[in-house]
Amino acid sequence: MDAATAEFAKRGIAGARVDRIVAAAKSNKAQLYQYFGSKDRLFDAVFEHHVTWLIDEVPLDTDDLPGYAVALYDMCLKRPALIRLAAWMRLERKPTGVLLPGGGDEAKLALIRVAQDNGDLDAALDAGDLLSMLTAIALSWSPASLQVAASARETRAVHERRRAGLAAAVRHAFLGSASRPQEAK
Amino acid sequence: MDAATAEFAKRGIAGARVDRIVAAAKSNKAQLYQYFGSKDRLFDAVFEHHVTWLIDEVPLDTDDLPGYAVALYDMCLKRPALIRLAAWMRLERKPTGVLLPGGGDEAKLALIRVAQDNGDLDAALDAGDLLSMLTAIALSWSPASLQVAASARETRAVHERRRAGLAAAVRHAFLGSASRPQEAK
Repeated sequence: MDAATAEFAKRGIAGARVDRIVAAAKSNKAQLYQYFGSKDRLFDAVFEHHVTWLIDEVPLDTDDLPGYAVALYDMCLKRPALIRLAAWMRLERKPTGVLLPGGGDEAKLALIRVAQDNGDLDAALDAGDLLSMLTAIALSWSPASLQVAASARETRAVHERRRAGLAAAVRHAFLGSASRPQEAK
Repeated sequence: MDAATAEFAKRGIAGARVDRIVAAAKSNKAQLYQYFGSKDRLFDAVFEHHVTWLIDEVPLDTDDLPGYAVALYDMCLKRPALIRLAAWMRLERKPTGVLLPGGGDEAKLALIRVAQDNGDLDAALDAGDLLSMLTAIALSWSPASLQVAASARETRAVHERRRAGLAAAVRHAFLGSASRPQEAK
């Protein structure tokens, strides 16, 4: 799984070479094809593995949307491969529509709708749009960013500045009136 | 240029085939290599062509940040190739740091700093961070989105809903106190 993650993250689906994966994993092609069927299905397995990890590791917390966004920022620094896999998936497989197959987002949307009903999140926004914009702004500096992609080699001060700016922007952008006492003045 | 744009946007830099480009352009390889030197330099020329177009076509207007974000949303629908070229560039060439070479962003950063000094934009944010977050949220539904990529085949109502949500989120997220009279109540 590690060898396949590294190869797919680096070169994408079309660019990945099964030879390199089996060499790095000290396995062989026959074994890999027997288990996964094809390079495409191996990619599916790798991608699903990382998405499942992400949903467990960085759960959506509608009581602390800024904290959730910052956790996604930190995840990008720790696991750049995950975001790169998703970006290859978008470019090579899914030019339009929802990227993640299955109902991974349904649970998040249900949480958002409850928080909107409670006045904790802006109820004027469509829940799906809110999730799309929240994810996008949290990934502003991701390895798939079209502006600036952060790296773990940058200084702590730079990361802290971005985390604080992201938390503030998310607070202002999405929180409902019940969660904006600081702006009621 | 059209033939190269289509091929690079579809398959990326490594995946693009010069044979297909010259066939589609009714040109020949000798001519192409004489003019551009290499497939990599052809990609550079194509990418620069589209970035220059974008900077002219969708100028940053700090008096109307929500309108600028919506114009980027619309541009993604009209020119999906441009965003895909940028995404391939990020994955294949520039894993970290600023994506665009040259000083394309310096002019935008200068405008943002002036607007921050005037109180029109939130002065607590670093200008570069503001530009990164603004771009990211405006590209929430872009062809490189890791959530939902919009398509021109969707209904007008869906596009209008996203434009309105995006404009509201940008207004709340980045505008300075001088531009937030509606929240002073």
